[in-house]
Amino acid sequence: MSSRVIVIGGGAAGASAAARARRMDPEAEVTLIERTGMITHAPCGIPFAISGLVQSYRMLRTYSPERFASERRIRVLTNATVTSIDVDGKRVEVSLGDGRTEKLSWDSLVIATGAKPLIPRGLEGVEEARPVLLRHPEDVVEAQRRLSGASKVAVLGGGYIGVEAAEALIDLGKKVTLYEMMDRLLPTAIDGDVSRVLEESVRRAGVDLRLGQPVRALRRRSDGIAVITDAGEEVFDEVVMGLGVRANADLAVSAGVKLGATGAVETDEFMRTNLEGVFAAGDLVEKHHLLLGKRVWIPLAPAANKEGQVAGANAVVPGSLKMRGIVGTAVTKFRNTYVARTGLSETEARANGFNVESTLIKARTKAGYYPGGVEVTVKMVAQSGSGRLLGVQVVGDDPVVAGYADVAATAITAGFTIEDLFFTDIGYMPATAPVWHPLIVAARTLSGGRF
Amino acid sequence: MSSRVIVIGGGAAGASAAARARRMDPEAEVTLIERTGMITHAPCGIPFAISGLVQSYRMLRTYSPERFASERRIRVLTNATVTSIDVDGKRVEVSLGDGRTEKLSWDSLVIATGAKPLIPRGLEGVEEARPVLLRHPEDVVEAQRRLSGASKVAVLGGGYIGVEAAEALIDLGKKVTLYEMMDRLLPTAIDGDVSRVLEESVRRAGVDLRLGQPVRALRRRSDGIAVITDAGEEVFDEVVMGLGVRANADLAVSAGVKLGATGAVETDEFMRTNLEGVFAAGDLVEKHHLLLGKRVWIPLAPAANKEGQVAGANAVVPGSLKMRGIVGTAVTKFRNTYVARTGLSETEARANGFNVESTLIKARTKAGYYPGGVEVTVKMVAQSGSGRLLGVQVVGDDPVVAGYADVAATAITAGFTIEDLFFTDIGYMPATAPVWHPLIVAARTLSGGRF
Repeated sequence: MSSRVIVIGGGAAGASAAARARRMDPEAEVTLIERTGMITHAPCGIPFAISGLVQSYRMLRTYSPERFASERRIRVLTNATVTSIDVDGKRVEVSLGDGRTEKLSWDSLVIATGAKPLIPRGLEGVEEARPVLLRHPEDVVEAQRRLSGASKVAVLGGGYIGVEAAEALIDLGKKVTLYEMMDRLLPTAIDGDVSRVLEESVRRAGVDLRLGQPVRALRRRSDGIAVITDAGEEVFDEVVMGLGVRANADLAVSAGVKLGATGAVETDEFMRTNLEGVFAAGDLVEKHHLLLGKRVWIPLAPAANKEGQVAGANAVVPGSLKMRGIVGTAVTKFRNTYVARTGLSETEARANGFNVESTLIKARTKAGYYPGGVEVTVKMVAQSGSGRLLGVQVVGDDPVVAGYADVAATAITAGFTIEDLFFTDIGYMPATAPVWHPLIVAARTLSGGRF
Repeated sequence: MSSRVIVIGGGAAGASAAARARRMDPEAEVTLIERTGMITHAPCGIPFAISGLVQSYRMLRTYSPERFASERRIRVLTNATVTSIDVDGKRVEVSLGDGRTEKLSWDSLVIATGAKPLIPRGLEGVEEARPVLLRHPEDVVEAQRRLSGASKVAVLGGGYIGVEAAEALIDLGKKVTLYEMMDRLLPTAIDGDVSRVLEESVRRAGVDLRLGQPVRALRRRSDGIAVITDAGEEVFDEVVMGLGVRANADLAVSAGVKLGATGAVETDEFMRTNLEGVFAAGDLVEKHHLLLGKRVWIPLAPAANKEGQVAGANAVVPGSLKMRGIVGTAVTKFRNTYVARTGLSETEARANGFNVESTLIKARTKAGYYPGGVEVTVKMVAQSGSGRLLGVQVVGDDPVVAGYADVAATAITAGFTIEDLFFTDIGYMPATAPVWHPLIVAARTLSGGRF
């Protein structure tokens, strides 16, 4: 009998898992079950659909369910919710969109239920105030409807979601106030000295930044929604939630899947959970951090896709593919200011017991004489003594800075020292980089005159 | 007595050597001797000065001789030619710009005389026809004067210099014909299937490409300069030489410096030549190729700068810094089409005895739904069996492709397999890359379904 693979969740990880299982085993019966009407959807594109830069939320998917199903010979159930997982009987119960219920049997199960918006325990009144949530592309329609009549909008949270939401709202001509509990933007991703550069760009665009101001409560008022902080309250037409996400693990837990210390699902490198035949992949699961040597929870799409691929491969050919660790590479932007980071920030490195040295330099993206170059800020962190490269943060008004982080991510994965990086044969032409590439300059500066 | 360091040649390598020697030894007497009136000059910018994109050839330098001299306390002699090197007596004889001659003693000598235009032995009539040469920024004035009255211009050579010269001439509104002996553009850098993409862009801009047409001779005619090939002759108003360069080693050879098999100066990793106390750096010297495990001659500015730094350091503190190998990273562009390459092309890998597999893919620079993305072509070459990454070539209408080569250069330097590269934590956001980065897609495709 052919192998039966059921994948729960049609996002990046789930769709990758289903596609990979199909590719590795042309005989397998593969079923993909998705709660919403979309699969292969890209939540990272939501802010750009809100602003109208991307014309419709429907564009935020790679495949229609029908095309994915027919091209890959995968049974795709949309608007279908898995109500229970019977691990001993190897069956799931699915509530279909039309009200019917179906029981499906599996030999391998991949759980890829992703993440859901985080609502901190200390924040009161969310249920009553109903702020705008941006998690699924289908949320875009409701968000646009509500925002269309709003002129004064608050964004809660200064992480990736908050910053990108603020960009979208500014592009829509709103008056935007952003609240962040910590004293800087992207507080878990970058150091304060790098945040300052981003904050300047955000403020210049007109965003009213309220840093170091935790929001205590939201309240519905006759004239809008009040945002309440220790400093008082202020009423907005709408409030957009950008407080981050948490693993959407309830279904997995109900089946007996074990969570790790981070609250996300723990898997091995084959993406196997503690349950026989049950895999998990994507924003739901912990990732192995190559520098920290421990499991962390950093839910981003590239790892989710690869985990899906690994889970799908092993679901049909056990042990065929191993997931590797991450180094925490991430990119965001606010208008034309791009921020990319990889490895550990100085804050993170110190918090994890590393003795570090760091430098922050300014350099240009092109040869000094070549028109169109911009100044970029590069922060580099290395381990004291060994000189091991631990992290790079870069911010500047040119998308090329994302590539700098990719180079650094590769170097960190390879265990490079800053001297190794300095001598790496990075390319040059006047129109694409200075002859001393900003990363090379940062490594040289960090060496303190050693090279 | 303080250490005396003499550096011959004020380009990238020489200026780096002088600056590094000064930094490592505040007491050293450092003298930089330059044949022309410019130091820290950037020949890579010449095409952009010719076209007027860079306003003056004077911008093609980082420091004026005066500023370099005063800020770094280095004696700078410009318009000064070293006429002889006395190795036993550790002295050089310098013919100064004002007609005087001076003898200078050294404890360490760094020779950084760079490269000079290549005039192939099989090409007749060059002396008589006097084509336009583009080697030094000071050549720009003469080139612009001659080109100002020309409407029909031939470019000899389809390598980096020829392609960038053709761009400049097209930007100036000339009618341009480019002759290349081999059947493709950038024949020593990229494979034919990648050249095709560049050639399409070059042809679209109006350049008449004559591939596979070695030029046999140039002849001065009353109405211009005739370019003679096996197909016949054609007369142009001006001819621009872009046939590449060769090591400018005559002075070094006259002093007894040993050349390697490539015809460039052989050094060890400390940039020491065969002569005690004599270092060499820059376009003059051979480089160690990490993949080929042998010395090659690829004269490019980033390595030249680092070699200068290494030579300068060791000139004052012997054994203090080691040069590493290169992997052949290079970038060029024609208008908005950028070409970047690193490692070995398929042609090069096969010629060097590697069993290889390769793939050529098309991918986009941004998420499919995000505006402004363009299609790029990525060719990836790996060693059969081991899967070791050997080379990447990329071409596309966005400068970000240069960053792809940098990532690949880092991966190649680290000895990555294509599986290592696939699992590298490369960053993603819709505005900077697709979630499956083009390099990741290429690695996956090249795996033939293995991952």
